[in-house]
Amino acid sequence: MPKKTQPAGEVFTERVEVSGHIIDSLILPKILDCITAAGGAFKIDRITVGQARKDPSYALLEVSAPSEQRLQEILAVIADHGAVTVAGADCRLVAADMDGVFPEGFYSSTNQRTEVRLGGQWIDVDLQEMDCGVVVDPQSKTAACRAMTEVRRGELYIVGHAGTRVHPPERQQQQHGFEFMNSPVSTEKPKGVAIRQVAIELVRTKQQGGKSLLVGGPAIVHTGSVEHVCELIRRGYIHRLFAGNALATHDIEQSLFGTSLGVRLDCGDIVEAGHEHHLRAINRVRRWGGIKPAVEMGELKSGIMYECVKYDVPFLLAGSIRDDGPLTDVVTDALEAQRIMREQVRDVSFCLMVATTLHSIAVGNLLPAWVKVVCVDINPSTVIKLGDRGSFQTVGLVTDVEPFFRSLVAEVDRLEKSAS
Amino acid sequence: MPKKTQPAGEVFTERVEVSGHIIDSLILPKILDCITAAGGAFKIDRITVGQARKDPSYALLEVSAPSEQRLQEILAVIADHGAVTVAGADCRLVAADMDGVFPEGFYSSTNQRTEVRLGGQWIDVDLQEMDCGVVVDPQSKTAACRAMTEVRRGELYIVGHAGTRVHPPERQQQQHGFEFMNSPVSTEKPKGVAIRQVAIELVRTKQQGGKSLLVGGPAIVHTGSVEHVCELIRRGYIHRLFAGNALATHDIEQSLFGTSLGVRLDCGDIVEAGHEHHLRAINRVRRWGGIKPAVEMGELKSGIMYECVKYDVPFLLAGSIRDDGPLTDVVTDALEAQRIMREQVRDVSFCLMVATTLHSIAVGNLLPAWVKVVCVDINPSTVIKLGDRGSFQTVGLVTDVEPFFRSLVAEVDRLEKSAS
Amino acid sequence: MPKKTQPAGEVFTERVEVSGHIIDSLILPKILDCITAAGGAFKIDRITVGQARKDPSYALLEVSAPSEQRLQEILAVIADHGAVTVAGADCRLVAADMDGVFPEGFYSSTNQRTEVRLGGQWIDVDLQEMDCGVVVDPQSKTAACRAMTEVRRGELYIVGHAGTRVHPPERQQQQHGFEFMNSPVSTEKPKGVAIRQVAIELVRTKQQGGKSLLVGGPAIVHTGSVEHVCELIRRGYIHRLFAGNALATHDIEQSLFGTSLGVRLDCGDIVEAGHEHHLRAINRVRRWGGIKPAVEMGELKSGIMYECVKYDVPFLLAGSIRDDGPLTDVVTDALEAQRIMREQVRDVSFCLMVATTLHSIAVGNLLPAWVKVVCVDINPSTVIKLGDRGSFQTVGLVTDVEPFFRSLVAEVDRLEKSAS
Amino acid sequence: MPKKTQPAGEVFTERVEVSGHIIDSLILPKILDCITAAGGAFKIDRITVGQARKDPSYALLEVSAPSEQRLQEILAVIADHGAVTVAGADCRLVAADMDGVFPEGFYSSTNQRTEVRLGGQWIDVDLQEMDCGVVVDPQSKTAACRAMTEVRRGELYIVGHAGTRVHPPERQQQQHGFEFMNSPVSTEKPKGVAIRQVAIELVRTKQQGGKSLLVGGPAIVHTGSVEHVCELIRRGYIHRLFAGNALATHDIEQSLFGTSLGVRLDCGDIVEAGHEHHLRAINRVRRWGGIKPAVEMGELKSGIMYECVKYDVPFLLAGSIRDDGPLTDVVTDALEAQRIMREQVRDVSFCLMVATTLHSIAVGNLLPAWVKVVCVDINPSTVIKLGDRGSFQTVGLVTDVEPFFRSLVAEVDRLEKSAS
Repeated sequence: MPKKTQPAGEVFTERVEVSGHIIDSLILPKILDCITAAGGAFKIDRITVGQARKDPSYALLEVSAPSEQRLQEILAVIADHGAVTVAGADCRLVAADMDGVFPEGFYSSTNQRTEVRLGGQWIDVDLQEMDCGVVVDPQSKTAACRAMTEVRRGELYIVGHAGTRVHPPERQQQQHGFEFMNSPVSTEKPKGVAIRQVAIELVRTKQQGGKSLLVGGPAIVHTGSVEHVCELIRRGYIHRLFAGNALATHDIEQSLFGTSLGVRLDCGDIVEAGHEHHLRAINRVRRWGGIKPAVEMGELKSGIMYECVKYDVPFLLAGSIRDDGPLTDVVTDALEAQRIMREQVRDVSFCLMVATTLHSIAVGNLLPAWVKVVCVDINPSTVIKLGDRGSFQTVGLVTDVEPFFRSLVAEVDRLEKSAS
Repeated sequence: MPKKTQPAGEVFTERVEVSGHIIDSLILPKILDCITAAGGAFKIDRITVGQARKDPSYALLEVSAPSEQRLQEILAVIADHGAVTVAGADCRLVAADMDGVFPEGFYSSTNQRTEVRLGGQWIDVDLQEMDCGVVVDPQSKTAACRAMTEVRRGELYIVGHAGTRVHPPERQQQQHGFEFMNSPVSTEKPKGVAIRQVAIELVRTKQQGGKSLLVGGPAIVHTGSVEHVCELIRRGYIHRLFAGNALATHDIEQSLFGTSLGVRLDCGDIVEAGHEHHLRAINRVRRWGGIKPAVEMGELKSGIMYECVKYDVPFLLAGSIRDDGPLTDVVTDALEAQRIMREQVRDVSFCLMVATTLHSIAVGNLLPAWVKVVCVDINPSTVIKLGDRGSFQTVGLVTDVEPFFRSLVAEVDRLEKSAS
Repeated sequence: MPKKTQPAGEVFTERVEVSGHIIDSLILPKILDCITAAGGAFKIDRITVGQARKDPSYALLEVSAPSEQRLQEILAVIADHGAVTVAGADCRLVAADMDGVFPEGFYSSTNQRTEVRLGGQWIDVDLQEMDCGVVVDPQSKTAACRAMTEVRRGELYIVGHAGTRVHPPERQQQQHGFEFMNSPVSTEKPKGVAIRQVAIELVRTKQQGGKSLLVGGPAIVHTGSVEHVCELIRRGYIHRLFAGNALATHDIEQSLFGTSLGVRLDCGDIVEAGHEHHLRAINRVRRWGGIKPAVEMGELKSGIMYECVKYDVPFLLAGSIRDDGPLTDVVTDALEAQRIMREQVRDVSFCLMVATTLHSIAVGNLLPAWVKVVCVDINPSTVIKLGDRGSFQTVGLVTDVEPFFRSLVAEVDRLEKSAS
Repeated sequence: MPKKTQPAGEVFTERVEVSGHIIDSLILPKILDCITAAGGAFKIDRITVGQARKDPSYALLEVSAPSEQRLQEILAVIADHGAVTVAGADCRLVAADMDGVFPEGFYSSTNQRTEVRLGGQWIDVDLQEMDCGVVVDPQSKTAACRAMTEVRRGELYIVGHAGTRVHPPERQQQQHGFEFMNSPVSTEKPKGVAIRQVAIELVRTKQQGGKSLLVGGPAIVHTGSVEHVCELIRRGYIHRLFAGNALATHDIEQSLFGTSLGVRLDCGDIVEAGHEHHLRAINRVRRWGGIKPAVEMGELKSGIMYECVKYDVPFLLAGSIRDDGPLTDVVTDALEAQRIMREQVRDVSFCLMVATTLHSIAVGNLLPAWVKVVCVDINPSTVIKLGDRGSFQTVGLVTDVEPFFRSLVAEVDRLEKSAS
């Protein structure tokens, strides 16, 4: 609670502190900027700057604003950047008064590591995810992010920003390939380094027992990349697949008919009537009762979906209103699909998004900030959109899909050989 | 059924005829091209060319191919361009043997006017829509397009192309504005004429008692176009709205908070914490029980959704996996949303698609070829994608959303005044 | 000369004929369309359609228009599509009355094979190039395209369209890879086939003693493709190079400093002060007296420009107003650069344009329609622009530059090995 | 000169200081980052942070690197961000040993305000421009940027970074419209505010007697914006015009024939043979002896070029290798065109770049950092390219050209009226 210092001059103030690599990670400048931009003012009461890059710094600020509401807004904003009020207080809890609705004034989560103060003690928030509420169980002293639709009457949600603490990401050690990829829109840069970096992440994730998630669009099939992805699955580098009806359909169309949207992938010829092939593929899979039965019956013998079944890679096909068919396996309800994705990303440590805006943004919304994400698309606007929406842990790679996968497989191969 | 002419030399032939404006509408050249491209050959047995542009022409062709299967494929392709086998036959019907699955070899519909031959008589296909099957009731002598998921066991579906006849669109009379818009990707063209043409379509549709459908993305709100769209609704030019959770959410966010994704639309300032506003807007609407209740309770007082409620414009908000919330009104199941859209497009005669790839393609898939569609986007790739997918009745307009709507309202205004 | 048939009813008519594959190459439909679009009308007096695809067809038309001027305009347009007036006449010649200016009403050339009638005889036009005048020497019975700036007073130029005959390109035999590439903007297509086709053209051109021209932008260097291009030069597949100051500068920067615009190409690191490297590279080359001296002095030891010097590949570096430096070798005057390019494209039979809009359009303007052109860019708009400007012999490939060159070298290698 | 501190441990150090709004303008973090990124290390010896936003801060750093060369590179980089070595030294001068070539190791200028130390005294560098050398006259104690081609033997140029001081731009006061435009690529933002801001700049520049420069591409004509630009010229808001042959040609084509590249701008019809109009327009202007004579002879009566002549707005038409014709007025030599532009931008205080990548980058290279630049294009990549090349004073506006100019004229009109 800020104290109303001057009823006359009408300035409301609050002291906050922030620590860590706040100068070279741009955290402090960002906080100062937010305060001024939002119409507030600040005084720096104390500042200690680390003598070297690895030493943490500390700052104590007095934030002021012309109204209490404005002050609260400012404190909410800078809390997301790690500024914590000195006059510590527990988080404030309000019970949900109806299902599927947060209490008014609910604390809205970021995708960064967050702690909340409960009984004077800071505890970690579980299931970190942006744009959620934080449900708290005072009994067990646990807190977790929860989506709006999942709210049940009577649950206790945090209201306001008091008693919450966000740990903004600190600038990492110089990461050659990835650091360089931070300006994603330029198409005029060498891609080889970046692709090698993705290969390194895949190999490291596998070695450490982590899970790599591939989120992919149908251009993977149209550009002739199926065999590359199959190879990655067979070698154990892909542990989850999120896609839509289109990727699975065209993958199966190619397996059954040798075409993708009617284009023969071996010679590029357009088989005129071929636009029907994808419909016929869907119809057959529906007849067979789904993708897994189709594989088990020996009807589906190759392709990405086939390898997923064979190598036990769980896949989610999320429906959309532009789907033909769809395949029996498609989860047509968006909320149900979100629930499954939420479940399946819990243990994902690396995520590769290729040639799909819709699924990439959907998954980006669900991932905590510390999961590394690489987004590959030939169209810079997809990469930009993902960045605009706060998935700032994402590095973008503007390149052509098929050559990307071809090089990726080659790099993974080289890494495997050099390791053995 | 083609006759096997030469068992030795292995050439399979069939005679087909085609009539109409087959030369200047490029229909005949297209058919000849398809035959050769698919590995067949043709002889022109008879050709009569109209003496003037308005006179129809006629051609009788002998199509040949090296195998019966290839010949059937060719006949299937050219049937879609209006070529009908001379040896007339009824369409062939097969009963569906399970729910949700067409019989193998099903006839896959186009979005163009189609007739099927039943008992020697050509009858029109109802509910024309691409990528469907055609269900036939021999009793009532009716035929209609039906989606795969709607198939019920026992229904009779057309199999193969025999006894089907498509009427490809003939080149229309010189249409100044629209004709010119046929090359949609160029951004270096005068837009004024095209926008006037859209205004003329809106006014004509209203005068003739037709229905105009707006399919829109959230950029309508982000670019500050809400008031223009509201004006079009109030004046009675928009009769249906298809959108997603995002358009409605940001429209309501703007009405409640004055921001869109946290950007203040009056001055362009970014309200830092504003990224939460859309979540708070959704939460409130959920509390109020939906958009209509919110208007009736007096809580929602302006914006596109408000005007839809007030002017009885039916709207469909289709869900997607990237939705926050979503609003209570959102139809989260993709198949259910498709069903509702299918129902609501039946009487639509003009369709304006603005700044949404997903919804535009979804709706484009459902519309018959004779519904005029204008697709507006600042990104040429959306317009190209729509064209690539067979929605060739679509004219594209690559321009900025807000100025487009501003000019559109001005043109409609001018037309109204000149009419009165 | 058209005869004024009806002074009262005011219809002006002229008979024209057209022959060749006028139906399946869409030539006749196009001509009929032009007539109507320009406000004229036609009657088909006679039409003979070839019985099979390889047989030529013939049509005799009566074209009419409401004014003589309009009729002349129509005849001018359809002449560009191969329609020739039956009442044959020689071309009309007018002497240029000043240097650098065509006579008013000059015939403006296309880039397609053209003949002009001189003394009742059709002779070929030399140096075919679009947007030029046609200078005629009645003495030697020769005709040639000439640019406006090259006009000298007293030269005889064709005026009007009479006595000119254009041979529009006929649809070629089914060309698998290339035919398929006719819709250049789609990024969702398999590229492997198209790249193989480019390799085949390079190999065929070399074998037949033709010349292949590479027109390239600096992204060739930025994306790390220098070594691939060097390999193509060393193997004798590139016989001309057209580029600007930037490609040569960054190529030399990379050779001298290992960076391109300050980005280290081996590891992707940005060398902060590296933006100066290109300036330092230019400065040194100026000191050495040019690229060739730099190679001869042993200062420049690798890269595209080095290989050009070593393998005697003539290069043109054309200047632009955004150049830094520039290098001593840059031709800074645009007209002089055009003159040199015109000279050097005369024997070019295949042209590969990569990642440069400016130079691609400049060269596209100079090439006759029968030179095969492949345009490669990651940005679809470059490819579209080239198509929009009448370079319709161009096939476009939307893909990433470095993987393109890598695959191209591999394909060329494979072709070489399979040939030996 | 850095002192070699430890011959054994091999660390080379130098002390630098930096002052100003170094924390909230991100200058200090940027410097620390550069040091580490380049392989150096730092210690903060002293830091004083301003108590409020308006108070300047100060930092004293010890920079160290593993080699003297590396240390020099680091000092060069951070010098561009305002870090000055404490052990002050005069700049080092070396005489040019040949024309058109800088001395090896020359200091390469930025586009930001720069001072150099001469005889212990800091003096301003004139004619600030990036990527130049700095020529010094010790006699008159003056220094100025000079392009490489202008170097004359014997002139004294600064070598190394010692004795140079750059003043990086400090973060400005909250600028509503413009601040918001800093993320230029998003097309999903309200444009009205930004356009109003451009109008305010135009009006302010006129009122203060400054000069506004319009750099424009031919899309200004193609999109039908000629009349808007004419209006701005007539009202005295455009004081310079830089363009190419194409803008002038199509502007004159429209004036003479009513078409732009053969498209009629009043109704959007494509006049088929109209692609010749631009050639005929050029030919006539050449006959008339140039644009000014054409206006004076009464032949050219409207359009942008006409208004430039009538209102004495100096224009530069810079040639390029893709020009047809060109017009007599076109400066075909790139270096000569650069010289003229350099001359004419000296007193420009506001620059509006519309729909041209080539000219925008060329002009961006010549402008000092304190000239406000707004770049308008419907294609985000143009705006991005400009930003990538260090013209960071540029704000980008991704929108359609014609509506932009229409709104701009309306906003200017409103401002004029509200002022009177």
